Amino acid sequence: MIATDGRPVPQEKSPVFDLSTYLSKRQAEVEAAMDASLPITYPDKIYESMRYSLLAKGKRLRPILCLATCELMDGTVEMAMPTACALEMIHTMSLIHDDMPAMDNDDYRRGQLTNHKVYGEDIAILAGDGLLSYAFEYVAVQTQGVPAQRLLQVVARLAKAVGASGLVGGQVVDLESEGKLDIQEETLNFIHTHKTGALLEASVVCGAILAGATEADVERLSCYAQNIGLAFQIVDDILDITATQEELGKTAGKDVQAQKVTYPALWGLEVSKTKAKQLVAMAKAQLEPFGEKAVPLMVLADFITTRTH
Amino acid sequence: MIATDGRPVPQEKSPVFDLSTYLSKRQAEVEAAMDASLPITYPDKIYESMRYSLLAKGKRLRPILCLATCELMDGTVEMAMPTACALEMIHTMSLIHDDMPAMDNDDYRRGQLTNHKVYGEDIAILAGDGLLSYAFEYVAVQTQGVPAQRLLQVVARLAKAVGASGLVGGQVVDLESEGKLDIQEETLNFIHTHKTGALLEASVVCGAILAGATEADVERLSCYAQNIGLAFQIVDDILDITATQEELGKTAGKDVQAQKVTYPALWGLEVSKTKAKQLVAMAKAQLEPFGEKAVPLMVLADFITTRTH
Repeated sequence: MIATDGRPVPQEKSPVFDLSTYLSKRQAEVEAAMDASLPITYPDKIYESMRYSLLAKGKRLRPILCLATCELMDGTVEMAMPTACALEMIHTMSLIHDDMPAMDNDDYRRGQLTNHKVYGEDIAILAGDGLLSYAFEYVAVQTQGVPAQRLLQVVARLAKAVGASGLVGGQVVDLESEGKLDIQEETLNFIHTHKTGALLEASVVCGAILAGATEADVERLSCYAQNIGLAFQIVDDILDITATQEELGKTAGKDVQAQKVTYPALWGLEVSKTKAKQLVAMAKAQLEPFGEKAVPLMVLADFITTRTH
Repeated sequence: MIATDGRPVPQEKSPVFDLSTYLSKRQAEVEAAMDASLPITYPDKIYESMRYSLLAKGKRLRPILCLATCELMDGTVEMAMPTACALEMIHTMSLIHDDMPAMDNDDYRRGQLTNHKVYGEDIAILAGDGLLSYAFEYVAVQTQGVPAQRLLQVVARLAKAVGASGLVGGQVVDLESEGKLDIQEETLNFIHTHKTGALLEASVVCGAILAGATEADVERLSCYAQNIGLAFQIVDDILDITATQEELGKTAGKDVQAQKVTYPALWGLEVSKTKAKQLVAMAKAQLEPFGEKAVPLMVLADFITTRTH
């Protein structure tokens, strides 16, 4: 379709994109790939423990963001799948270690007993270490059809996202803030942009790098990811108050019990909901130049604020 | 010097290689590089905790093996230094996590209180995670003058050496064997080839890969490393019985207390010493084709069996 001034008219948004079908299909692909990535061998116990947490029910949001971004930048699902699996391995490691008695001391996660409750604290520490190192091995060894230089960038981004300058640093400030009810918005933002945001951003950015995206596009997609990362956390805080344990698959009301400052505590529930929506709108604005191809990332951004668990 | 048949005569072995000077120089270089690798930034506590264990007094055997092998294969110290630092980061992570109450429950390491005794168990878990991920970031980002393809191989080798198919797997079998005094030699070998051997082997192999060594040379050096790895562990077991806590910098007699089967328990002290010497001889035999250039690795192999701590 061509407008009267001769320029192509942007296509209407496809009315048939069904998120639920899309997510189910992608979740199944990611879960099949993860299942195949980690066969059980001697010593069985450590592999069983790693698989117990890795294959537990989950949204697979990080892998799906990585695959969607790679496709958006004209890469394939195949070239991004090892990195997608690695993202879930890293995320799972952080959940196993965070749930331990020395940290958040959680008994339930993803609708089942936490790793250390089943396998013991020693194996839980080691299962986390095993998943973290295997993530890097898996990207380096299993990725096909991507230049080594790009893969090195992916390794660097993943490692930075999980380390002291990312997830680990966020968790440290979170632990330090526990019980302090006078935490400022700045500190809360630091916690979440590091504890949750860094790995979500890496998910999107790595998908783009694998496909050979330009620096400008990587920057734009990083911005998208940072906004949905913060929105994701605000919604998480809201759900901790409003959802039931059954819906969450983990202990509900945990933040209040642990005297953790949350966005609803800082802003109230209604303002928190509004801010989450604003962040999602800002995220989606970054995708405008990509047109129709960005529909999956657009819809994923909406999904974050409307999800109920 | 040319022989009568026109071929160059192999040089006599240099009589002046002084191991003590060599080790001191290399240790100082590695420690300066590690110190510079990890500046303290917000949140300070996690960086302080990582630095506390990383920079604690240590032999730096893994970095030194990596640098020496890279030089042997005509690479430079500069191109191997980030990997050398990464090896010590990974080794330090394994010590921090192994020392935790849920695992070996040690109070002293490298002549100082263990990480969790100073910083708490939560920070100790996170410091380990931070060091492990930073190791991969550091290799990927800081290595200069090495093709990306080789660096990816290094990432894969390091990751495999620390994961469930390496160090973590060895630690799991070690934990399972505790208190069982009927452990077979096969199981003891599995524990040590994985818990100690895998990372020592990776140290040597990564040094060779960085320098662009042929597959045959990598294989030969891997064999050298496997032999000194096992010898190293036998000597460690011997020292646990014969050395004092002051000499070791960690709790002495720990293995006996923990009812761990050791090589001296299996073979007796004298046979253990003999086997360690045989393994070192086998290791050195692998180095013959490299001639004079292999002197540092030769002497390092000897050092392992004659060390007193």
